Amino acid sequence: MNEHDRWMRLAVRKALAGVAKGQTPFGAAIVRQGRLVACAHNQVWQRSDITAHAEISALRQAGRKLQTLHLKGAILYSTCEPCPMCLSACHWAQIKTIYYGAGIKDAAHFGFNELKISNQQMADLGKIKLELHAGLLRRECLEVFQVWRASQAHQAY
Amino acid sequence: MNEHDRWMRLAVRKALAGVAKGQTPFGAAIVRQGRLVACAHNQVWQRSDITAHAEISALRQAGRKLQTLHLKGAILYSTCEPCPMCLSACHWAQIKTIYYGAGIKDAAHFGFNELKISNQQMADLGKIKLELHAGLLRRECLEVFQVWRASQAHQAY
Repeated sequence: MNEHDRWMRLAVRKALAGVAKGQTPFGAAIVRQGRLVACAHNQVWQRSDITAHAEISALRQAGRKLQTLHLKGAILYSTCEPCPMCLSACHWAQIKTIYYGAGIKDAAHFGFNELKISNQQMADLGKIKLELHAGLLRRECLEVFQVWRASQAHQAY
Repeated sequence: MNEHDRWMRLAVRKALAGVAKGQTPFGAAIVRQGRLVACAHNQVWQRSDITAHAEISALRQAGRKLQTLHLKGAILYSTCEPCPMCLSACHWAQIKTIYYGAGIKDAAHFGFNELKISNQQMADLGKIKLELHAGLLRRECLEVFQVWRASQAHQAY
């Protein structure tokens, strides 16, 4: 298994753990210098916090753990393309490399009220350089959505 | 004093309280049906949390207080135009009316590494309707930046 698959599988497993606890089907991991810095699933329902997406939660975890705001050189692995909120949070944290599985359109298809602006559009409009890798383990990431939809408590927002 | 000035002044006072505690010069208030739901200053340094902008902090506060994700009909007052992260968070929370004082370009001028995408651009690109009111008490909101810059501990990110 290559390095990137390995970290994305971790994010997928975290997303599934979240779904098992009644959360929505999103997971994210932050890796720096080959080491895991943070890993989180979406916690929006659990915390009554509309901002507690997997990526935002991982960024907070990283900040607390490393006592730093900036994660230059880190890589974000997300089971779904970060929404514009999460993409902008990555910008603030100076994360420039993002791997994701499913796309924003997939999340919208499953009922999430996504602001449909792709990561590439955000980068172009904001004139920043991002290294974006779409579709990593896409099939497995989409399966998380299916597991979620099959669960009794599933509820989009 | 009109209603909107009144709530913006509250956000300004909150921002100044934050600056007095070594935080950055941003404040936000969320109002629904004429009542204050949440009010926060930026807490990024205090919490080592790059996502703890004033608006995000106010949204989290509102979620905890009301135990709801959605704030339909609420108004956000922010001393500075919400960055794309905060604007997208408002979208998730279904807040469609935003009053702000200073602009993203002002924050960039004071050294903040803003992703320079205006709220109007975000709305246009995402094809959503927002009621945006720029420049409310702009002079007072800019003064908060000046107070911050004159403080010993000031540090942008």
